[in-house]
Amino acid sequence: MMRLLKGKTVVNHEIPELKAQVSRLRADDVEPTLAVIMAGKDPASELYLKAQKKMAVRIGIRQQNYFLPSNASQESFLSLIRELNQDSKIHAILVELPLPAHLDENLVTQTISADKDVDGMTDVNIGRLWRGTSVIAPATAAGIMTLLHAYRIQISGHFVVIVGRSQIVGRPLSALMLRENATVVIAHSHTHDLKDLTRQADILITDIGIPKLITSDMVKKESVIVDVGINRARGRLCGDVDFERVAPLVHAITPVPGGVGPVTVISLMQQVIDLARRQYGR
Amino acid sequence: MMRLLKGKTVVNHEIPELKAQVSRLRADDVEPTLAVIMAGKDPASELYLKAQKKMAVRIGIRQQNYFLPSNASQESFLSLIRELNQDSKIHAILVELPLPAHLDENLVTQTISADKDVDGMTDVNIGRLWRGTSVIAPATAAGIMTLLHAYRIQISGHFVVIVGRSQIVGRPLSALMLRENATVVIAHSHTHDLKDLTRQADILITDIGIPKLITSDMVKKESVIVDVGINRARGRLCGDVDFERVAPLVHAITPVPGGVGPVTVISLMQQVIDLARRQYGR
Repeated sequence: MMRLLKGKTVVNHEIPELKAQVSRLRADDVEPTLAVIMAGKDPASELYLKAQKKMAVRIGIRQQNYFLPSNASQESFLSLIRELNQDSKIHAILVELPLPAHLDENLVTQTISADKDVDGMTDVNIGRLWRGTSVIAPATAAGIMTLLHAYRIQISGHFVVIVGRSQIVGRPLSALMLRENATVVIAHSHTHDLKDLTRQADILITDIGIPKLITSDMVKKESVIVDVGINRARGRLCGDVDFERVAPLVHAITPVPGGVGPVTVISLMQQVIDLARRQYGR
Repeated sequence: MMRLLKGKTVVNHEIPELKAQVSRLRADDVEPTLAVIMAGKDPASELYLKAQKKMAVRIGIRQQNYFLPSNASQESFLSLIRELNQDSKIHAILVELPLPAHLDENLVTQTISADKDVDGMTDVNIGRLWRGTSVIAPATAAGIMTLLHAYRIQISGHFVVIVGRSQIVGRPLSALMLRENATVVIAHSHTHDLKDLTRQADILITDIGIPKLITSDMVKKESVIVDVGINRARGRLCGDVDFERVAPLVHAITPVPGGVGPVTVISLMQQVIDLARRQYGR
């Protein structure tokens, strides 16, 4: 019997736990606070920001948004980050990407203090992730783990194929999977015989942005499919997986939309709490 | 026709190039300098140190060794590292591991300045490695790439299976392989059906420390085998691969000893030069 891995169900299940964590911090006069910086206008970022704000309010996290004009100078951007790094009332900093083209994304990201880098983008946090000394990872990667844990999907010893090697999904996710004793492979545009690989996957995760690339002959029966792709085809949102044909074959699959997306936001909030707790010395 | 991937051949091929790089730095009054810190006595570390020293002399790199007593305090260790971090005549710092048990290996390693961390052990350098902004990696992982490049083994698009997920071989090597567009999988003690996986490997790298674990039925014909294991069985050194039976089946294979080992040292020296050049602003 195929299970639908519904993000919203996981979110509703997680919210009371996160609220309780926030309450404990607030009882000690710590108000977990997330600073979000956005430069210029980007419709996707604005949607994401709105979803964050809504969730923050629900959980009791304070979210402070900083909007910079699209022609903001690099220096003004960096000095805002440095100010937030110093501000003890701010526990977590997120920069909405992509940035306007004249800004150096790398420099901006690496200026965030590792201890406030809630999206796990700094070199230090990538290092901590691979050495297993930190729980902070890019929110989408963290969200996928939250989703799989919530549905009690076995990870240890399973063969996990991740299609897509981005810095925010494929790479950090492979570190998280390895930490939980999965056997992990990252496939990408240079991979030969993709089908041979995906057909072996106990857990298949796709983040490629090609509608319906994963067809029914590319999956293993009774496997688990996590579709991170969000594509628009004929005016409708769809993932990287041919959902209609693949879903009947597998043990569990995420819908698009409604799968990984909602969990990303709750995982981000969990990481805000984790950072606040750590800065408070808990 | 099977090829033997001989470390010494690669080293002899690389030495003139490294010497030339050192000469160019020396012409600009930069004497590339490696500081090595060792605490207590460890026979393996002493052998490695001796091999380093010999190679450093050959290439023209200055190597300064610091021997601390086995009961050296944590603070004395850290303050030596901090001193070397500040010393502009020192371009690269290496701490020989393992450390005596009373020292915090993690803290010691992370105290090394990322810009002098020649063995790629700091979080910052792990992050740089995964983001592709640095060339510094743990010397064994870097050495394996040097060996494969020297023998013009194709990496891009190939399926690479790494058995062993250590911080100094498996993990960094998977980053280096991914950067060169291999499809990489790390197998480990929790991996099911290891044989199914290794039989698919175009390039198989083993770093497990179990003599002859990899038997002839576990390899793909015409594949490339890199054996990082150094084990002692019946008084003789041998790798993780059953060399006698596997060698006739494959395209290329490293002997043990004489394969990866010698290249590790030359790759370390290359990274000393790279760090010196970068600190000099080249």
